[in-house]
Amino acid sequence: METTHKKGSSSTIIAVDAMGGDNAPNEIVKGSIEASKSEGISIILVGEPELVRKTLDQYDTQGAKIDVVASSGVIEESDQPAIALKKNPQASVAVTVGLVQKGAAHAAVSMGSTGALMASSFFGLGMIEGIDRPVLGGPFLGYAPEMICLDIGVNVDARPSQYLNFAAIGTALSRSYMGIQNPTVGLLNIGAEATKGSKQAKEAYELLINSDFNFIGNIEAHELVAGKANIILCDGFVGNALLKFSEGLAEIIRRDIIQKLSGKLTEDEAISISSDIFNSISVLDTSGAPILGIKGVSVVGHGRATASMVKSIIKSAKEFHESQVIKAIEQELKRI
Amino acid sequence: METTHKKGSSSTIIAVDAMGGDNAPNEIVKGSIEASKSEGISIILVGEPELVRKTLDQYDTQGAKIDVVASSGVIEESDQPAIALKKNPQASVAVTVGLVQKGAAHAAVSMGSTGALMASSFFGLGMIEGIDRPVLGGPFLGYAPEMICLDIGVNVDARPSQYLNFAAIGTALSRSYMGIQNPTVGLLNIGAEATKGSKQAKEAYELLINSDFNFIGNIEAHELVAGKANIILCDGFVGNALLKFSEGLAEIIRRDIIQKLSGKLTEDEAISISSDIFNSISVLDTSGAPILGIKGVSVVGHGRATASMVKSIIKSAKEFHESQVIKAIEQELKRI
Repeated sequence: METTHKKGSSSTIIAVDAMGGDNAPNEIVKGSIEASKSEGISIILVGEPELVRKTLDQYDTQGAKIDVVASSGVIEESDQPAIALKKNPQASVAVTVGLVQKGAAHAAVSMGSTGALMASSFFGLGMIEGIDRPVLGGPFLGYAPEMICLDIGVNVDARPSQYLNFAAIGTALSRSYMGIQNPTVGLLNIGAEATKGSKQAKEAYELLINSDFNFIGNIEAHELVAGKANIILCDGFVGNALLKFSEGLAEIIRRDIIQKLSGKLTEDEAISISSDIFNSISVLDTSGAPILGIKGVSVVGHGRATASMVKSIIKSAKEFHESQVIKAIEQELKRI
Repeated sequence: METTHKKGSSSTIIAVDAMGGDNAPNEIVKGSIEASKSEGISIILVGEPELVRKTLDQYDTQGAKIDVVASSGVIEESDQPAIALKKNPQASVAVTVGLVQKGAAHAAVSMGSTGALMASSFFGLGMIEGIDRPVLGGPFLGYAPEMICLDIGVNVDARPSQYLNFAAIGTALSRSYMGIQNPTVGLLNIGAEATKGSKQAKEAYELLINSDFNFIGNIEAHELVAGKANIILCDGFVGNALLKFSEGLAEIIRRDIIQKLSGKLTEDEAISISSDIFNSISVLDTSGAPILGIKGVSVVGHGRATASMVKSIIKSAKEFHESQVIKAIEQELKRI
């Protein structure tokens, strides 16, 4: 099935994997409808057609621009992405990315396996020249809204030279997506001095200090919280650990605040305060993480995303597309 | 000057480096007096004698058991510990550890350079057989009070085999200090499966799964927050990043909560709630971190420690001493 929105419509088209994630398809479908209504985004829902249509029927789609494209099966978190995709090229995530590949959508969004979206994007959209592996990154702390962190989960055991790629991608993302003209670059480390840290961090420091990025040196994790640099570079293992740690804290603190305010404020006030703080800690839940370095916009959302999170993630995907971040990364890589 | 408390007194004697840390000597001296009064601990303050005595004179020491031992100079955070100690063996941290070495005190406490306390302890007290490098660890999240994490800042680029040492030390600490008979051991990783993570993590997993520790597999950082294992093993780089990240978050969240509750609750209520949450995030601030694997109790406190934190850290040092954690570690290492 082909989308009908491409011709004669100037709205952004987002392909959404309706089958990926813990709350698929219900929350994905619901969030997609909401995003379409409030943001004027055209959505292509990819999934088992009957299931998706049945789910759509449960909601009021008046005013939403939704198409359905058929897929068959889903890649699970526990699957080996490349192998599973080879076995099932019609899986929802592959078809979703395929729509971007053939120009039927501007961006792909999935709440399913990060590895599967990454592999689909790698094979389907290809890498930007000069980058050999996708990089996961983006804003991840509401308290530091002008900061992005990369890598946050893909490049574990990153080679020191990869940090230059992270810096280039981060600089382009910061400039195009966040509008920061000369973003500062910091290296996550466990001390301020150049001699501190792991072998990897020390070698990355040497490369960065001799680069022409706006490198401001080592950043310790409490300084990261304070937003001391616009771009924080780290190994995917560390970035992922920090991200999940903040997610875990956000959840436990939300519950703790509600409990502590119980009987002192109204329930609505308590929920409002605790939600604000939750969002200031765990921002990635609502923005999703773009897979960077590929020639197209693919955004992975949290597996546990609810409809309102799905809506925000789709909106982020639109903004990533509109900020022309791919072109900015290509230019930054040509420059260095 | 020799302490007079050793003979005829059964109270615990703690040697405190009065010169180390951002708030030395005032907050250190004040916190020591408070600890002595409330816990019945005998304190030996180590520092420039005139300065320490002048500081002591500012406070009411009635009921406190305080001695002063002279030192000369202080090792700074920016110094190379081993070199600086060789140059100045009379530095406050060295004299502090020296008191433990010669049996004049049961434990050493410093808010100064972690590296300097570590090096002093390494050279002065020696290592427990079977361990080649000190390990930094302890409880670090109030929300997970039965969890300890190691290493949190010393062993960066840890060899996979060192994780077995971390596990042995952690098991002994959990058993003796926390009273948990058969503590669970988890490996911090970025996924649940054995195949996930860095090269280091995968190799450590193999060793741990084939050990006879109570190993329950990989733990992701949000599960760490939930206290899923009693002992979390990680590389010192990652542990230190998580620790500082939580410190940074604790501070920013405290301020945010106070601001959000302003006008809604009394100032006292707002401070009480925000402090509770601060302490639930940043527990290490009040417990200090024991340097583990050495033949004696050395506890490092936060450089920015205030008097009330100093008091808590001294109390922790007493508890570490009383729990006979050194003996427990020796036994655990003999067992494996």
